[in-house]
Amino acid sequence: MPRSLCTKESQPLMAQSDLKVENTDKDAEAVVQTVQTTSLQRTKACFLKGVSYFAGDMPVFAKWMEKQCFLLQILDWVLRGAAQVMFVNNPLSGLIIFAGLILQNYWWALNGFVGTLFATISALILQQSRGAVAAGLYGYNGILVGLLMAVFSNAGNWYWWLLLPNIFMSMMCPIVSSALASINSRWDLPVFTLPFNILVCLHMVATGHYNHHFPQVLIQPRSELPNITWADIDVAKLFMSVPVGIGQVYGCDNPWTGGIFIISLFISSPITCAHAVLGSTIGMLSGLALAAPFGDIYFGLWGYNCVLACIAIGGMFYALTWQVHLLAITCGFFCAYLGSAIANIMSAFGLPACTWPFCLSALTFLLITTETNKIFKLPLAKVTYPEKNLCFFWKMKKQKKKEKMEEERKTKEEQKTVIEDEVIFKEKERLRLELITLQEAQKSQMDASEAQSEQRDTSEEQNTQNYQTEEILTHYV
Amino acid sequence: MPRSLCTKESQPLMAQSDLKVENTDKDAEAVVQTVQTTSLQRTKACFLKGVSYFAGDMPVFAKWMEKQCFLLQILDWVLRGAAQVMFVNNPLSGLIIFAGLILQNYWWALNGFVGTLFATISALILQQSRGAVAAGLYGYNGILVGLLMAVFSNAGNWYWWLLLPNIFMSMMCPIVSSALASINSRWDLPVFTLPFNILVCLHMVATGHYNHHFPQVLIQPRSELPNITWADIDVAKLFMSVPVGIGQVYGCDNPWTGGIFIISLFISSPITCAHAVLGSTIGMLSGLALAAPFGDIYFGLWGYNCVLACIAIGGMFYALTWQVHLLAITCGFFCAYLGSAIANIMSAFGLPACTWPFCLSALTFLLITTETNKIFKLPLAKVTYPEKNLCFFWKMKKQKKKEKMEEERKTKEEQKTVIEDEVIFKEKERLRLELITLQEAQKSQMDASEAQSEQRDTSEEQNTQNYQTEEILTHYV
Amino acid sequence: MPRSLCTKESQPLMAQSDLKVENTDKDAEAVVQTVQTTSLQRTKACFLKGVSYFAGDMPVFAKWMEKQCFLLQILDWVLRGAAQVMFVNNPLSGLIIFAGLILQNYWWALNGFVGTLFATISALILQQSRGAVAAGLYGYNGILVGLLMAVFSNAGNWYWWLLLPNIFMSMMCPIVSSALASINSRWDLPVFTLPFNILVCLHMVATGHYNHHFPQVLIQPRSELPNITWADIDVAKLFMSVPVGIGQVYGCDNPWTGGIFIISLFISSPITCAHAVLGSTIGMLSGLALAAPFGDIYFGLWGYNCVLACIAIGGMFYALTWQVHLLAITCGFFCAYLGSAIANIMSAFGLPACTWPFCLSALTFLLITTETNKIFKLPLAKVTYPEKNLCFFWKMKKQKKKEKMEEERKTKEEQKTVIEDEVIFKEKERLRLELITLQEAQKSQMDASEAQSEQRDTSEEQNTQNYQTEEILTHYV
Repeated sequence: MPRSLCTKESQPLMAQSDLKVENTDKDAEAVVQTVQTTSLQRTKACFLKGVSYFAGDMPVFAKWMEKQCFLLQILDWVLRGAAQVMFVNNPLSGLIIFAGLILQNYWWALNGFVGTLFATISALILQQSRGAVAAGLYGYNGILVGLLMAVFSNAGNWYWWLLLPNIFMSMMCPIVSSALASINSRWDLPVFTLPFNILVCLHMVATGHYNHHFPQVLIQPRSELPNITWADIDVAKLFMSVPVGIGQVYGCDNPWTGGIFIISLFISSPITCAHAVLGSTIGMLSGLALAAPFGDIYFGLWGYNCVLACIAIGGMFYALTWQVHLLAITCGFFCAYLGSAIANIMSAFGLPACTWPFCLSALTFLLITTETNKIFKLPLAKVTYPEKNLCFFWKMKKQKKKEKMEEERKTKEEQKTVIEDEVIFKEKERLRLELITLQEAQKSQMDASEAQSEQRDTSEEQNTQNYQTEEILTHYV
Repeated sequence: MPRSLCTKESQPLMAQSDLKVENTDKDAEAVVQTVQTTSLQRTKACFLKGVSYFAGDMPVFAKWMEKQCFLLQILDWVLRGAAQVMFVNNPLSGLIIFAGLILQNYWWALNGFVGTLFATISALILQQSRGAVAAGLYGYNGILVGLLMAVFSNAGNWYWWLLLPNIFMSMMCPIVSSALASINSRWDLPVFTLPFNILVCLHMVATGHYNHHFPQVLIQPRSELPNITWADIDVAKLFMSVPVGIGQVYGCDNPWTGGIFIISLFISSPITCAHAVLGSTIGMLSGLALAAPFGDIYFGLWGYNCVLACIAIGGMFYALTWQVHLLAITCGFFCAYLGSAIANIMSAFGLPACTWPFCLSALTFLLITTETNKIFKLPLAKVTYPEKNLCFFWKMKKQKKKEKMEEERKTKEEQKTVIEDEVIFKEKERLRLELITLQEAQKSQMDASEAQSEQRDTSEEQNTQNYQTEEILTHYV
Repeated sequence: MPRSLCTKESQPLMAQSDLKVENTDKDAEAVVQTVQTTSLQRTKACFLKGVSYFAGDMPVFAKWMEKQCFLLQILDWVLRGAAQVMFVNNPLSGLIIFAGLILQNYWWALNGFVGTLFATISALILQQSRGAVAAGLYGYNGILVGLLMAVFSNAGNWYWWLLLPNIFMSMMCPIVSSALASINSRWDLPVFTLPFNILVCLHMVATGHYNHHFPQVLIQPRSELPNITWADIDVAKLFMSVPVGIGQVYGCDNPWTGGIFIISLFISSPITCAHAVLGSTIGMLSGLALAAPFGDIYFGLWGYNCVLACIAIGGMFYALTWQVHLLAITCGFFCAYLGSAIANIMSAFGLPACTWPFCLSALTFLLITTETNKIFKLPLAKVTYPEKNLCFFWKMKKQKKKEKMEEERKTKEEQKTVIEDEVIFKEKERLRLELITLQEAQKSQMDASEAQSEQRDTSEEQNTQNYQTEEILTHYV
């Protein structure tokens, strides 16, 4: 589904077809056909151009925004930050996501907004790369910090004091992001949501359930066999767990919110959207395989990490091929396994799993080295969204092919030259041998006519001839 | 407060002023003034020189020590190692710190001494860099290991068997330090007290509370709401918690010991001392903000990590500017938060927080990358103490300014040359045009006098002239 | 004990001695002696060659295998993988180890085989380096994963469903290995059994004791003083704990199995075997020193990590010298300490210690940097087995010595040339001075004979002479 992203490449192609139309005016029947094709192409191009205005990373909008006032710009960055949780750099998706959050819970949405805002402001104060800030790369940890601190707070909604640690932790996001990036960049890896994981766990475990100011919900490790009877399974809820799993990326258990998130993903990148749904399904299946309590599966707790892992591996940081698609599915299952493990470990400290499983599994799968060229990891600076990544991959592949062909052509030419050189060399050798025999013949003649000493002139003549042949030889060499 | 550290730079300045005095002897009034200034400068210089003998890193003493017997040298290294816990490379501070430890507890002080001694000896056996050993960089983990193993032992004082694991763990310090340095050096980071943290936690969790040979004190996670009534707060104890927090760096809860430590810090570097007090205060405030039990705050448990973090960021590894000062305060609050989190996690294993919070928060803040030049991280090899670091930073800044001005001057000169070249080029162009017109005029003259063919000589003359002008042109070009 | 490994080097040496025999045929007595030596050398060489067929890494067999069918090759890789747990790259050792496993438990052996097989297949699918796969470097984590998942399963033997997670986790091994290698290769470190540790802990904690599908054995932290009375100690069992400790590397508590493993180690490399026994002894002693319950010591739980750590440091990744041998012993004690610590921490999550202690302690000791050349860490690509590593080290040392001597020779020659140059220079100086005095004498003569102006010719003559001497001088210079 390479859509909008290719418009730039398609425009010059269309210009050429227009030219062709003018040139082929002579033949009447051909004209009709061409015109039909052209109008179809035109419609397609118009559609692609229209789509490019709101899909992908909305580059036209981003350029337009640069000239607007600072407050509007910050709003753009905040919306992009909200969408970047799902690796989507698109303010429209961000807006829809905020709508989904409001549908879920006003207070949570407010906390998420405050978190994104202050994380972005903090990044500006710390003078981080403006490009990264504008892409929302410093906001997405902020929205998660804000949201999840509200979700896991035991003080109930509208406990305004919560905004204080919320703002502090959000402002710490760019610091932790920058520090982690210093480490991860050595392996050309992104920081994912590690800063969010670190900071929310920090806040939760620092205060804990037994705290007067900021109490957290009580999470305890499992200490008895869960009651699982396969007859009780609710298939409708099981299906519903797929959108719920996508909603749980933002801590939301409302299936409608999850549905809205799916739409927001589809707008920006259908490949991302497909992998999100695939990931949530993988998580649900893994939960069933590992005999998890049905409640957890219905609640989407098995899905959200797999959603993120599938998106990250399936086309975002690797160029999407069939091999990479299989790798993404494997990563999804591994992530689900890891999710259960980490949830059990963290519960010993009263902590939720957050998105640690996604971060660790995706980082593991991004660190793989292999000798096949079907699994191509994009350089971190070139990562945009799956469709554009694919374009980049294809272009690179084409260029490599070209270079290879060029090289082959050169090698062939060189071989040709070598063969020609050999032919010339052989020709020269033949000439030289002829000359030698000629000279020897003359010499014997001379020996015969030695007595006739008055025939000096001819001898000199011959010498000159000799000299000339030698000259010819050196010229050849 | 750049004191002693600048004496070297100030001495040549003084020598110049002395010379000036001799030169300005002629004017009587000026002399009086100058002499007064000079005597003031002299007094100041004498004072600075005197201070340099025992403040900073005592370079004069270190040089003198190199010629002494080996046992004295080791004593110097042990004392420096004791002070290096606070990033102070000063044997006098080390001596005062040992005095403070003895005031607290004889047995602890003995264990600390044994730890430092064996860590230093082990570093010598492992043939580590002699410079680092002489700066006490292999001793400070040893003193902490020795002290804290005694502090957390449940076997009571004067349990002599404890010296066995103490010596073993102290001797492991240089090994763990060296291994961690191999990793951290990739990011130009110090190892801080990580070896101590690792080794003490290792010993404590390996033996545990339920052990026949080396039982540890019982530490358990909080499982109910602490009883906090704000009316019960004891302001005097709260103020006292500031020196106690500094004392807790060495595991001491005696406020007098903490006070002695403050003095030892002031001797070597007032900036360090100020940040230590600031850090302890930040920790105390954070404890109140996060509703910690008052007992913990009074006991200094909220302070010691912030003390170390504030010192490390505030001038030690960054050059001290206002931005860095604010960063140090932020790091202090983050460290307090992290301290509470780590203490809660570690308590699940019966472990204290040690200085993990300080290590992790300081490393995080040292890994930040930013585009501002106000936050300058010193290369690890150039780190000494805040005042000297500042001198280094200023000198570097001045040099950069100079280089910039030099570059600007060059650019200006180049522009000037370009302009001059243009003027010359225009002049040449003008000359060439004049010549062409001259030649054309002559040609027309010649055309006119074509009939008079005997006038050949003049023509030749003209040719010569022509040639000459061309020569001039080529010369110009 | 440098055995087989040196055969290649010794063969040319023998050829030379054969030649010598022919050359020294003249002297009768000498012949007898030489012949005796030669026959002894011959016998030794034959023995070494015979040993090389099944000892070391069996290079002849590996070469022969390359031409066999794929299934046989995979079997070779699986057997080598089984032995690689102990750093042994030898299919015969692998076969013996499988025999030991079958002696212990059929079901465990089957799981181990399935694990190795699928890990190897997965590495082939992921197109990992064929050389590493053929050396069994992708199989050893698989065998441990398969074995230990069966060992720690609470569902009893022949619970066939267990093969499903077994195959999944085994196939994850190459992925985790490859990812970890990307990180560790930055410090030229191996991944050891970290993938196994990660994956088995993952499986165990993800399912846990309270699971319907894959329940794990119940492991709980110690919560009271163990009952240790020194009178009850069973010395026979204590001695038996040495082979049991070696068996526990593969999770086997049968002392006969441990004995079989010792034999399999001895076949490939006696140094490895000696360090394995040494390590197990160190672990047992550490257990006694730290007041561990006797049951744990008898069961070999204190031994297996030390076994691996001692092998890894003692000759495998460092070239074996006395200093390295001492380092290996230190590492053994450190590993035992760490083992106790990690076992206590992991038990809080219901997990066994696995081989985490070995991995962490060995990595720490491999990261050490020191200024002595007696502790030489082999480049990872050159690591084979202790005896061959030693040969490599000696050869390198010899070459360095040669280079040094060559350099010294050059320096001496240069000094000689410098001295000679000086002598020539002095000689020239002397000549010049003589000439000057000569000239002056002539000049004074000339001054005296100024009146006789007709004596011009002699003056000219003298000038010529002067010129000649100058020429000589320039020639010298």
